[in-house]
Amino acid sequence: MESASNLLQSFQETRDVSLSLFAPLSAEDTSIQPIEDVSPPKWHLAHTTWYFETFILGMFCTDYKTYHPEYNYLFNSYYESIGERYLRAHRGNLSRPTSEEIIQYRKEIDNRVQDFFQNTGSKNQEALTLLELGIHHEQQHQELLLTDTKYILGHNPLFPKYQKTPPLKKPLQAIPLSYLDVPAGIYEIGHRDSEKFCFDNETGRHKQYLHAFQIANRLVTNEEYLQFIETGGYNNFEYWLSDGRAWVEKNKIYCPLYWLQENGKWYEYKLEGLQELDLSSPVTHVSYYEADAYASWQNSRLPTEFEWESAANIYTPKAAITGNFLDNAYIHPLPASSENLQFFGDVWEWTSSSYLPYPYYKRRKGALGEYNGKFMIDQMVLRGGSCATPKNHIRNTYRNFFQTNKRWQFTGIRLARHT
Amino acid sequence: MESASNLLQSFQETRDVSLSLFAPLSAEDTSIQPIEDVSPPKWHLAHTTWYFETFILGMFCTDYKTYHPEYNYLFNSYYESIGERYLRAHRGNLSRPTSEEIIQYRKEIDNRVQDFFQNTGSKNQEALTLLELGIHHEQQHQELLLTDTKYILGHNPLFPKYQKTPPLKKPLQAIPLSYLDVPAGIYEIGHRDSEKFCFDNETGRHKQYLHAFQIANRLVTNEEYLQFIETGGYNNFEYWLSDGRAWVEKNKIYCPLYWLQENGKWYEYKLEGLQELDLSSPVTHVSYYEADAYASWQNSRLPTEFEWESAANIYTPKAAITGNFLDNAYIHPLPASSENLQFFGDVWEWTSSSYLPYPYYKRRKGALGEYNGKFMIDQMVLRGGSCATPKNHIRNTYRNFFQTNKRWQFTGIRLARHT
Amino acid sequence: MESASNLLQSFQETRDVSLSLFAPLSAEDTSIQPIEDVSPPKWHLAHTTWYFETFILGMFCTDYKTYHPEYNYLFNSYYESIGERYLRAHRGNLSRPTSEEIIQYRKEIDNRVQDFFQNTGSKNQEALTLLELGIHHEQQHQELLLTDTKYILGHNPLFPKYQKTPPLKKPLQAIPLSYLDVPAGIYEIGHRDSEKFCFDNETGRHKQYLHAFQIANRLVTNEEYLQFIETGGYNNFEYWLSDGRAWVEKNKIYCPLYWLQENGKWYEYKLEGLQELDLSSPVTHVSYYEADAYASWQNSRLPTEFEWESAANIYTPKAAITGNFLDNAYIHPLPASSENLQFFGDVWEWTSSSYLPYPYYKRRKGALGEYNGKFMIDQMVLRGGSCATPKNHIRNTYRNFFQTNKRWQFTGIRLARHT
Amino acid sequence: MESASNLLQSFQETRDVSLSLFAPLSAEDTSIQPIEDVSPPKWHLAHTTWYFETFILGMFCTDYKTYHPEYNYLFNSYYESIGERYLRAHRGNLSRPTSEEIIQYRKEIDNRVQDFFQNTGSKNQEALTLLELGIHHEQQHQELLLTDTKYILGHNPLFPKYQKTPPLKKPLQAIPLSYLDVPAGIYEIGHRDSEKFCFDNETGRHKQYLHAFQIANRLVTNEEYLQFIETGGYNNFEYWLSDGRAWVEKNKIYCPLYWLQENGKWYEYKLEGLQELDLSSPVTHVSYYEADAYASWQNSRLPTEFEWESAANIYTPKAAITGNFLDNAYIHPLPASSENLQFFGDVWEWTSSSYLPYPYYKRRKGALGEYNGKFMIDQMVLRGGSCATPKNHIRNTYRNFFQTNKRWQFTGIRLARHT
Repeated sequence: MESASNLLQSFQETRDVSLSLFAPLSAEDTSIQPIEDVSPPKWHLAHTTWYFETFILGMFCTDYKTYHPEYNYLFNSYYESIGERYLRAHRGNLSRPTSEEIIQYRKEIDNRVQDFFQNTGSKNQEALTLLELGIHHEQQHQELLLTDTKYILGHNPLFPKYQKTPPLKKPLQAIPLSYLDVPAGIYEIGHRDSEKFCFDNETGRHKQYLHAFQIANRLVTNEEYLQFIETGGYNNFEYWLSDGRAWVEKNKIYCPLYWLQENGKWYEYKLEGLQELDLSSPVTHVSYYEADAYASWQNSRLPTEFEWESAANIYTPKAAITGNFLDNAYIHPLPASSENLQFFGDVWEWTSSSYLPYPYYKRRKGALGEYNGKFMIDQMVLRGGSCATPKNHIRNTYRNFFQTNKRWQFTGIRLARHT
Repeated sequence: MESASNLLQSFQETRDVSLSLFAPLSAEDTSIQPIEDVSPPKWHLAHTTWYFETFILGMFCTDYKTYHPEYNYLFNSYYESIGERYLRAHRGNLSRPTSEEIIQYRKEIDNRVQDFFQNTGSKNQEALTLLELGIHHEQQHQELLLTDTKYILGHNPLFPKYQKTPPLKKPLQAIPLSYLDVPAGIYEIGHRDSEKFCFDNETGRHKQYLHAFQIANRLVTNEEYLQFIETGGYNNFEYWLSDGRAWVEKNKIYCPLYWLQENGKWYEYKLEGLQELDLSSPVTHVSYYEADAYASWQNSRLPTEFEWESAANIYTPKAAITGNFLDNAYIHPLPASSENLQFFGDVWEWTSSSYLPYPYYKRRKGALGEYNGKFMIDQMVLRGGSCATPKNHIRNTYRNFFQTNKRWQFTGIRLARHT
Repeated sequence: MESASNLLQSFQETRDVSLSLFAPLSAEDTSIQPIEDVSPPKWHLAHTTWYFETFILGMFCTDYKTYHPEYNYLFNSYYESIGERYLRAHRGNLSRPTSEEIIQYRKEIDNRVQDFFQNTGSKNQEALTLLELGIHHEQQHQELLLTDTKYILGHNPLFPKYQKTPPLKKPLQAIPLSYLDVPAGIYEIGHRDSEKFCFDNETGRHKQYLHAFQIANRLVTNEEYLQFIETGGYNNFEYWLSDGRAWVEKNKIYCPLYWLQENGKWYEYKLEGLQELDLSSPVTHVSYYEADAYASWQNSRLPTEFEWESAANIYTPKAAITGNFLDNAYIHPLPASSENLQFFGDVWEWTSSSYLPYPYYKRRKGALGEYNGKFMIDQMVLRGGSCATPKNHIRNTYRNFFQTNKRWQFTGIRLARHT
Repeated sequence: MESASNLLQSFQETRDVSLSLFAPLSAEDTSIQPIEDVSPPKWHLAHTTWYFETFILGMFCTDYKTYHPEYNYLFNSYYESIGERYLRAHRGNLSRPTSEEIIQYRKEIDNRVQDFFQNTGSKNQEALTLLELGIHHEQQHQELLLTDTKYILGHNPLFPKYQKTPPLKKPLQAIPLSYLDVPAGIYEIGHRDSEKFCFDNETGRHKQYLHAFQIANRLVTNEEYLQFIETGGYNNFEYWLSDGRAWVEKNKIYCPLYWLQENGKWYEYKLEGLQELDLSSPVTHVSYYEADAYASWQNSRLPTEFEWESAANIYTPKAAITGNFLDNAYIHPLPASSENLQFFGDVWEWTSSSYLPYPYYKRRKGALGEYNGKFMIDQMVLRGGSCATPKNHIRNTYRNFFQTNKRWQFTGIRLARHT
């Protein structure tokens, strides 16, 4: 684990990033919840603060007096061990506390956390462990704050802009698609215990036998996906899982989320506003159903998470995690280049693996046992992080997971095939 | 009709009242929509402005250029003649335009309306008629702005206050319940054509034969309603309509909206905050089902709207419409006194009449034909205005109407019986 | 009231009619419930038997032993006074008791009822009153058995026939539409106490002032209604109540229930099978929304129930109730003739009156107080009986009632207008 | 593949078994569909017949004339390649064709199939392949016919009996729970191509590395599961997946399906009627959520399907598939004995593996490509067959699959753990 002072610095930097991501929003933007998946942006600011208050101050400060008696009820996300909580579906009904009040709450808790760790806390290993987890937890919510904001603004008929995009050298053209070989054999999967921080769902390093396979050298592009659309991919049941087909029909889906066709031209809403579709960028905001159907149409398939991790280990050695991350401030995927095979950053890559416990996985005791294990059903694993993920948050063993019909995250497609 | 200059003054006063009612709200309060019935407060500001822009400027100014190309789509409530409109249920998904932008919109349209009526508009009878309607329309939305605000704040676990209540001499005790006699005969119902402004649903003055009846001299109080609760009124099916019983069971209703019991004590949320229940004030925020069940429990009934109007004509002569209205700024019903039999103000009184067209009623042509007539089904008539109604908005022929299960308006109960 | 022996004869005749209506059904037909409104035909046989067992045998026979301990639970329709009951929506989940077992149940209860009334029962006025009510109750369920059967067979892709239609002289052409005058004045509405049996919702004979009006001399025909369809009536919001329009859009309604268009030709499912649409017959299986929209399109309106009753009194004197009833065995409306203005029989006529209590109406005490009063909300009154109503069941004061969106009864349209 | 004559004999035997399973039902039982999962029993008879008519007669008989023009529409389950189909959720709305008519349909198609294969068909390898698949398909529907019948009768308040149970020597006591060892290593999973018939989801024999583990020597018993209930297992969130907990709360689940507690005593509905709970029999009719929660409570887990198959290969050599199958006619699980470790028969065993394609799996072309592959998402694998499975239907590579919340199949629990 990092030293106490490093962690404390990291804590404050992370807290500051959250505030800066929040700054461009109007007070009205911060409070609404157009669908249950999307939390009001101010809720993320409050919930991450609640984490530090509950799991550090509340647990380790003697006679701790909570900042506000109702906040534990309002900002607990899903921890049943911590008591009753306000219903997720109703977060958008809460105009109070205002975002200003929540920023005050953050500042006060930041001070209290600093105080604690500059004193007794610095020697408290359990508290430091929870501090580190809290930093990674806040990074997860930074990504959600951005994707939720995108949903809020991108579904407003006025298509407001969240930001001006910084100038970036971006390749005009993605590299040609080719396939990388991975030989058959037994591979080690999961996080090494000796390594640095990881979430508990990555633990239980274990063996997987993989048959020989090939994996694409980059993500599927908008241009390629457009061909799938234009050749009738959404209307041909042969490519679709049965549930996927029902989802398409019920929701009248015919393109990725945030795409819009007007007068025969395709547009895509980005955080910088509504833009003409860039053909060479990776397709994003697709559901698992769409990813799987696209692969079927290509007579191909998605990689398993074990294949993905093994290929990432071989083709982008861990020492060199680079890519298009939140730190870039572009917050949209970019075309692949010969230096960037896109295993990391750009978009979360749907794998064909269900989110299930690794062998030997044990849920933690207590509240933090609710962090991951209880969600290990009916979700698919995504790998590699996205353009909205902080760079120092991702690992090659990192397991993200969503239900098959979710599209509001930066999700995308990499193909694989057996040899 | 009023003179153009009187109307224009009335217009500006009404517009200013709306802004002053809006002022205490946080930006976050103005944007959310916890249930479909409740519109975001800023929506009311925008929609009433849309009315003036669409039905006056858009119709009578040559080459009129709309303030914003999307606003007609966003702020049309239900006028199919005017074109496509944003779904009512999704009003709470719109963080933009912000409330600040909407206030700018109001100011600009106010100026344009002033300009128009200080020039050619002042001679345009049709435009003046629509101006007058627009003023009354805005007053309706003032009431809704308040009841929607009450819902938003009153359902927040923090129970924020909307306002400090002004000091008022209020009677400590309601006057004793007694019954007023109305003899049998043919009564004239509805608005006299010669009179001042009215909505089209009041027109078609016609005859109704009424059998002799008695009507209560005041509204039902919290104390009386509490007895209904405490003697098991909500659990005894005998008092309830079948649909009402299903509504009670499905929604686990056991008291009026905004009532709350803690440690055996009853509280009521008012716009001034959570307060101990005041026994002598009229019960409010009850559904038609509850009003009807209460009357059954009392071996009594609700008056028809014809009975109500006839009794109001007799017992509170029109010249003297007084009562506890929005102008009081108390915005909560108050106990009855011997000077105030509460026919007007305090709470809208549920009648046992369905909202149906009067004989000879004809829907207007064009968009304003959609104002009233198309809602004349499966709603019940309410009479008399409430503590949130502007005093100069109400008439003894005024017909309000809501579905039987609605409770977020200031609704209450007056009993009647045959003799 | 009828004499005991007359009632007993009437009882047995009515019971026999029910069985004969049931006879053409397959066992499979008798058990299913395609929508909540439609009860399985065998349920009607059982429920009407339950009535006699519960309200006569169970109440007046000392030490009465019920036929089956579960039947009170299974076949109670909605009487909360009688205890728990099986959910209406799940009636179609009950394959047992089989229809054969239910027929056995009927026979046994018939015998017990006969025994009782041939002995002590014949002097028991209260029991005789309930016997009479039970006969009329069973007649109501005969109509429902037929309309439910029609729904079951008419929604089967095989369109099975319920019966062969008896040969009938039927006019080839309906008489031309004209209007009958009714002068202004005070009219007496409701059942005379001195008269024979009526339901409690008809009691409370009272005065209504009616303005002068005209009422159509016959029902609206298929030909006339087809014009409404063909001139775009379903797509023009101006004719529709707001709720009606939402109903049309949500359910994609574009013609009456049981109509079907194939290769440009219209067909109608009747109990005798799928037939080409007969233009001169009355339109039927329309909702209140459709009836009201049709009237609007005609620049006309529906009569109130008071207008209907007054006109029926004038134009088809009570002594002469004739028409196309269940007794005809045709079970489909027929064209109007100069001898038959169709006030009675053919179709239930939607009125523009809400189903509300008459002045002085009081719910009965006990279970039978649940027969009518608790449904007096959010339903519209229909008058006159239909081709599925037993002739001796109907009266000019008879009030039927359904929700505005119901179409599976034989419902139709008669126009009225002010003069 | 079997010889043509063997297949034809097998065909007729299988068809006869279906009829004999159907025989005890009343016509009413055969037509209803209390929940969407449960098809009307007569539908199974018709659908399996439709299979032979569509995929054999329709494809290989020249100028084939279908038995009934609507049956392809009515009895297609989910094959989009075959055209439009009647909605699954509405199967219970079809009283016609009657069960008698469907039996006629079966007889006629049986004759036509016999004719075809006694002539040209006997040399048609593709037709014989589809015949063999059709036999196995019909066996699947025999099991569904029984579980659907159980749902229909077991949810009827009269609890009718389907059958009298044959006398069976059944052990009074299940053998004590112990654990069987399986060593780490690479295992071969899936069906050998050289072997006899299998479904396509079993193909793609491949390698899996398994860490060493132990697997229980028998299924979890009612007695053991009752302890889980009695120690509050359903109320303690720590044992439950998050979705499982939501499912328990929403549906108020507190015991397996078909269990019933009265006066402190537990009963279980079996096809022989309502019986006192037999403590030594395996628990059945539990969802995946319940199976997983039970395992958590035991500080244990469910086996993966790879572990299950490997253990079954070791501990119940293929040559000796024995167990309590449909052929027993008991149709309820029985206690384990030292000769019967219950890997096969009794109950389908929930595994912790998602239903996903094996490596190299390819969907077939054409309609039969819809048999399995399109369902490979958000379902869990079950292994081993049940007391309602025909003995000659099961294999150690057989993969059954259901959603996590399904309980109407004979599903049960076997524990596993890492060593």
